[in-house]
Amino acid sequence: MSGTSASEGPRDHAGSDSDRRARAVWSALAEPGDAVAGALVQTCGAAAALAWVTSAADTDRPDWSGLERSAGELDESLRRRVDVGVRRWAARWRSLDPERDRAAAQRSGARLVVPGDPAWPGGLDDLGALAPFALWVRGAPPTASRSVALVGARASTSYGERVTVDLAVELARRGWVVVSGGAYGIDAAAHRGALTGGGATHVVLAGGVDRAYPVGNAALLEEVVRAGGSLISEVPPGSTPTRGRFLQRNRLIAAVSHATVVVEAAWRSGAASTAHHAARLLRPVGAVPGPVTSAASAGCHRLLRDGVAVCVTDADEVVELAGNVGADLTPVPTGTDVRPTDGLDPVARRVHDGLSRRTARDAEQIAARAGTTPAQARAMLGLLELDGLARRVASGWVVSDAQE
Amino acid sequence: MSGTSASEGPRDHAGSDSDRRARAVWSALAEPGDAVAGALVQTCGAAAALAWVTSAADTDRPDWSGLERSAGELDESLRRRVDVGVRRWAARWRSLDPERDRAAAQRSGARLVVPGDPAWPGGLDDLGALAPFALWVRGAPPTASRSVALVGARASTSYGERVTVDLAVELARRGWVVVSGGAYGIDAAAHRGALTGGGATHVVLAGGVDRAYPVGNAALLEEVVRAGGSLISEVPPGSTPTRGRFLQRNRLIAAVSHATVVVEAAWRSGAASTAHHAARLLRPVGAVPGPVTSAASAGCHRLLRDGVAVCVTDADEVVELAGNVGADLTPVPTGTDVRPTDGLDPVARRVHDGLSRRTARDAEQIAARAGTTPAQARAMLGLLELDGLARRVASGWVVSDAQE
Repeated sequence: MSGTSASEGPRDHAGSDSDRRARAVWSALAEPGDAVAGALVQTCGAAAALAWVTSAADTDRPDWSGLERSAGELDESLRRRVDVGVRRWAARWRSLDPERDRAAAQRSGARLVVPGDPAWPGGLDDLGALAPFALWVRGAPPTASRSVALVGARASTSYGERVTVDLAVELARRGWVVVSGGAYGIDAAAHRGALTGGGATHVVLAGGVDRAYPVGNAALLEEVVRAGGSLISEVPPGSTPTRGRFLQRNRLIAAVSHATVVVEAAWRSGAASTAHHAARLLRPVGAVPGPVTSAASAGCHRLLRDGVAVCVTDADEVVELAGNVGADLTPVPTGTDVRPTDGLDPVARRVHDGLSRRTARDAEQIAARAGTTPAQARAMLGLLELDGLARRVASGWVVSDAQE
Repeated sequence: MSGTSASEGPRDHAGSDSDRRARAVWSALAEPGDAVAGALVQTCGAAAALAWVTSAADTDRPDWSGLERSAGELDESLRRRVDVGVRRWAARWRSLDPERDRAAAQRSGARLVVPGDPAWPGGLDDLGALAPFALWVRGAPPTASRSVALVGARASTSYGERVTVDLAVELARRGWVVVSGGAYGIDAAAHRGALTGGGATHVVLAGGVDRAYPVGNAALLEEVVRAGGSLISEVPPGSTPTRGRFLQRNRLIAAVSHATVVVEAAWRSGAASTAHHAARLLRPVGAVPGPVTSAASAGCHRLLRDGVAVCVTDADEVVELAGNVGADLTPVPTGTDVRPTDGLDPVARRVHDGLSRRTARDAEQIAARAGTTPAQARAMLGLLELDGLARRVASGWVVSDAQE
């Protein structure tokens, strides 16, 4: 993420004053989720990228060599994307006012956090080119804490809110930080529950941190900051929350959290998009089931059916889910002495030996090879499949590599 | 399943009179789920197995050669199991009365169905040695029909019963046969819903088909028979339903159905055991979620968490689930021209090319090979994993065979 390149001066390295200033500008210049800007900043560093874009915007024939010194040779399609990007960003030069943004941040008690700062949530780096340039933060950001996103529908039911509050209270009591989007319904219940449980909670906003949105949750957001949590945004103070920013905001909720749990969500919903962001980041995703007669749970059931989310029903299961990352994974045995077939009984072993890795055989053929009845072979194949050692294909059975 | 062997006379083949008589005896002699008796009958045929057991029961030194002519040489542990079995079955000689059973069947309008009969549900053969010797059936058995088991808790909630009735009505209207256990709660709602939908429904009982159990459902069971369904049992008329027989009955519900759906079930429950039987038979299993605050749904959520069941919320999803067997499976492409990596963009392809099948590499190493940034490699690895093309192991990443 450092993005330092040979062409930058010593004061341009990540976290330097010029890097901070440039990132503040980028946070206003490029729309959240602008992967071209993100890749440019990653490759050249924020300050050098900004300098090059500034010069390129002034001419119809940009000096690609200046960019290619940092980024390497660009192919035609990439040049075209950067070219389009320059024009996209240049359209915002006039409204750009870093001094105004800085003053607004100061007024609202917000500060700028950039990669390299101790307060930078490391999980954001997994977003790659889609990582935010900077965060504007009111309060204490969720850095090394164990954090879980609890998200869901604005049109929630009393069932969903009750379950959310219960989960958030329990998670907070166990030292987990609750992250959500500050919206009505499930989000608000998540923040409230975390406060009730005496924990910190973080609100990732789609607009500026000086703009309580929705207004009806203004008191709740203030309470979040007072209680040691924070309001977080990737756009400068004063920015309005737009539809696109709500969707992009969801990737930040997923990226700053160890796991994402959806409590209630309609068939199509922003909460489900947060879940998909988390899944793409390989973060664990949970969904709380509800009555199949409730439209507010349809999105959760869809996530379960699609295999995106694991079914979670209480705080224990959420903690188990969120703990299953990186270092907490059960190590895969590397010794050559242990084989998946070691525990099999002799008949199952013979049936397994009758399977091929490439050639599908049906139960009768396998039985003939293994010296069992077809029924025994069928039964054993079923058990082997449950153990991940055999796999059913269109024309019969093959050895499965699942456990190797 | 024919079990015909060289030592049997022409009148002993599967479905012959002597086979039927012997199977009727076995259904009284061996307890449901007696795999030793099942294997013996499978190997030697019902009549020959019965003749040998009769002679062996009369002596302390059974003539193994008589058995081994059909079964092949038996190892010591198998001899011991058969020996124990003979003693187990001999304990029932005295209470055995095939004439009484036949008369009781006639009185209640039940008939004996054995393997080879057109009315024999073929799905039972997948049980192998655990297949029932025969079925006693009042009404029309569920043979070639498309059938779904709807099972669940006796201690059901109004939510669970409502969902069950809705599912059963819809399934019946679409021509699916509903199978259940005739118990109070979800089972009864399943049968009632099927009748309401104008469909056939089958009750698999733990005791004799002449014994309405539970008594409170007697009128419902009669209605099932009148409406073209059936009462089914593997024990003769007059047999009492015991705890063991309830558990063994569950394997029959799973085996005669194309899919099993659990609507409500406590954390430990008979319905969950039916689901596990179905899973072992490689039949699709569904679970209907409910409020996490309802103990009656805890077993369903457990099945979802354990990956035993797929989340189903309406009749469409149940039909999709039940249709996913055998011939309805999407064929696996066999051509060599189509590779799972065909759809990848160039960067993802390069990252995939940087992976090894055996040697785990971390994102930095893969990035160096692929000529991408580590963050790009990480992001691409995430997408590749979602596509089943890369797999995370303890020390890094490897190629996944999931789609090959």
